[in-house]
Amino acid sequence: MQEEILKEVTVKTPSKIVLLVIDGVGGIPVEGRTELEAAHRPNLDRLASEGICGLTDPVYPGITPGSGPGHLALFGYDPLRYEIGRGVLEALGIGMELAPGEVVARANFATLDQEGLVLDRRAGRIPTERNEELCRRLQREIQEVEGVRVEIRPGREHRFVVKFSGEGLDDRIADTDPQKEGLPPRPPSALAPEAERTAKAVEAFLQRAHQVLNGEEPANGVLMRGFSRLPDIPSMEELFKLTPACIASYPMYRGLAKLVGMEVLEVGETIAEEFAALKRHFQDFDFFYLHVKKTDSFGEDGNFSAKVQVIEEVDRHIPQLLELEPEVIVVTADHSTPSALKGHSWHPNPFLLRSPYERRDDVDRFTEAACARGALGRFRAVEAMTMMLAAALKMKKFGA
Amino acid sequence: MQEEILKEVTVKTPSKIVLLVIDGVGGIPVEGRTELEAAHRPNLDRLASEGICGLTDPVYPGITPGSGPGHLALFGYDPLRYEIGRGVLEALGIGMELAPGEVVARANFATLDQEGLVLDRRAGRIPTERNEELCRRLQREIQEVEGVRVEIRPGREHRFVVKFSGEGLDDRIADTDPQKEGLPPRPPSALAPEAERTAKAVEAFLQRAHQVLNGEEPANGVLMRGFSRLPDIPSMEELFKLTPACIASYPMYRGLAKLVGMEVLEVGETIAEEFAALKRHFQDFDFFYLHVKKTDSFGEDGNFSAKVQVIEEVDRHIPQLLELEPEVIVVTADHSTPSALKGHSWHPNPFLLRSPYERRDDVDRFTEAACARGALGRFRAVEAMTMMLAAALKMKKFGA
Repeated sequence: MQEEILKEVTVKTPSKIVLLVIDGVGGIPVEGRTELEAAHRPNLDRLASEGICGLTDPVYPGITPGSGPGHLALFGYDPLRYEIGRGVLEALGIGMELAPGEVVARANFATLDQEGLVLDRRAGRIPTERNEELCRRLQREIQEVEGVRVEIRPGREHRFVVKFSGEGLDDRIADTDPQKEGLPPRPPSALAPEAERTAKAVEAFLQRAHQVLNGEEPANGVLMRGFSRLPDIPSMEELFKLTPACIASYPMYRGLAKLVGMEVLEVGETIAEEFAALKRHFQDFDFFYLHVKKTDSFGEDGNFSAKVQVIEEVDRHIPQLLELEPEVIVVTADHSTPSALKGHSWHPNPFLLRSPYERRDDVDRFTEAACARGALGRFRAVEAMTMMLAAALKMKKFGA
Repeated sequence: MQEEILKEVTVKTPSKIVLLVIDGVGGIPVEGRTELEAAHRPNLDRLASEGICGLTDPVYPGITPGSGPGHLALFGYDPLRYEIGRGVLEALGIGMELAPGEVVARANFATLDQEGLVLDRRAGRIPTERNEELCRRLQREIQEVEGVRVEIRPGREHRFVVKFSGEGLDDRIADTDPQKEGLPPRPPSALAPEAERTAKAVEAFLQRAHQVLNGEEPANGVLMRGFSRLPDIPSMEELFKLTPACIASYPMYRGLAKLVGMEVLEVGETIAEEFAALKRHFQDFDFFYLHVKKTDSFGEDGNFSAKVQVIEEVDRHIPQLLELEPEVIVVTADHSTPSALKGHSWHPNPFLLRSPYERRDDVDRFTEAACARGALGRFRAVEAMTMMLAAALKMKKFGA
């Protein structure tokens, strides 16, 4: 959908939309039932029977999305058009602040042999505490290279993030990770003339880092990849005239929400705290993105029954959501995470939309199979935003 | 769908297609039933049970279309690609002829105060008769400005249309309507260098018009907006090899049909007269667009039962349509107009297609909910044209 048209047809109104994302909720059957089918979910079923249902393809049929594209689509942004670089996503994932123009990359601690060839790309997956210690040391020794500021932040095990700040930086830099043991690290070559200066700064950083880590064992090397910058993305306010808020406890989702201009609310770790934050801030915003993480985490672990329990926990909180009486409630996911597959998958997401201005269908259960028979049919997740806006009466007529 | 491909695969055959558009027929439930569900519609149900059904999004999910985009899509033109300007649509709506290159704008009679500020953008909604009188006077006094011919035609109340004809005109002219009272009218500025000459002509027209209206009360001013030209749009003959006819009693729909090269048939005001015209001309064309207006009008009025009665009236004429034995019958709408919302809406349109060469599904009622379970699923209205052509065996194989 063209941005000019969206800006033209959307209107600011007091009506409220709650988008509840149960991360990775969809599954495939294990002994005949998916996690949703196995869960006791009277309140989600009530929403389904009062609303209209369907299935969404997060990006494109058959495509398994990462969290970035899966969420961008739900926020109304075509994930094939707006790509979020790996470095940026990693930075968001550890809660690092990013400003336009800054270049960021994922980095690994690695083991190099005496000839400088890569012996182990992950330095034996050193413990996170060791990683934190080494990052502190690197940051102490390296604050600037070639007039470019450097910020270093540890992740888990061998992973960390490096951010470069300064004038005229460019992210078109080749990965230095050779992806195979037995090869030397590659140079951080500029992939466009405009990136020459950045490439020199990265090269200087790597030289200094290798000096600092000299003699260190096993983490005596650094490999970098996924150089990227914040994408140039219009805000939800600009496109949809929304005043949106994010209720999510994990940094990556908070970072994704910030990317599209949501206000990120302070919230604790639990689902109960997330619903409490929704109630507390309900008067202050007109769009709420509430993210439940643990369905995805337990799906990734292959833990069917723990995923079922999280669904049941969400279900118990639905009456609190109904008490707030938002005009539009949507319950869906950014992608499926079947515990049978122990990872994200391409399977379409169950989707329900409840609004006094929307039709109903005869779906009375919130499961994959029931939603597949819903009146919304199967559609692209990116189309959900205009449907939510319409059902909240936040859209004018297009054309005369 | 690319035009080159369409031109390549369509073939001329004697088979006939009837596209029956029941304007705004879809609704949302009022006391549990939509207008279609409440109507007695044995013949529409028969068509549904003999055909294959689905739901269409006129433009894009959640987008509420005006009549222009809604119809263009049904005629096989992507409404996000072919936009019809406001001035053009207003001109079509009052039955004004338009030639390529002519520039047309909507105009209001307005009230200006002594300093020339807008006191009332609509001149107190003067009666249509007064409007007609003032338009006659303006036309008598102003036939040409700066070598550009001027044609003035009254609409309803304070609204009229001004058409500029001549060489090298351009529609990139800013609105002069300031959209707010208390401000002066804006100048008709050129928004591109190529529009300078047109801007001068419009300015001269406005000066002359204000001289003519001087001392008039309350309509002593003119505000203009929506400068536009006929879009550059290939004909249905060119794209689809059809010889199409339009059966519609309202000027706007007749104008839209002419825009895509349909022959507009003379027809009376009633549904009976429309079906009689179809019978009379059935041998002369291979595609018929038959438009029923009053479902939309009563939907806009919020008159549920009157809308139901129009549906029943259409239903009673279906046997006449069947007697003609067209190969393809499609019944659908350009958009929904739920009487509960008193206006156009985004809700998908029920759609049925009946052809001896098409599959059937088990839908046996022509309602929104029944069509939602149809074998065609939910699709974009622009895709209906190639489906109709295919079901009339008017399409060759694409690729070897």
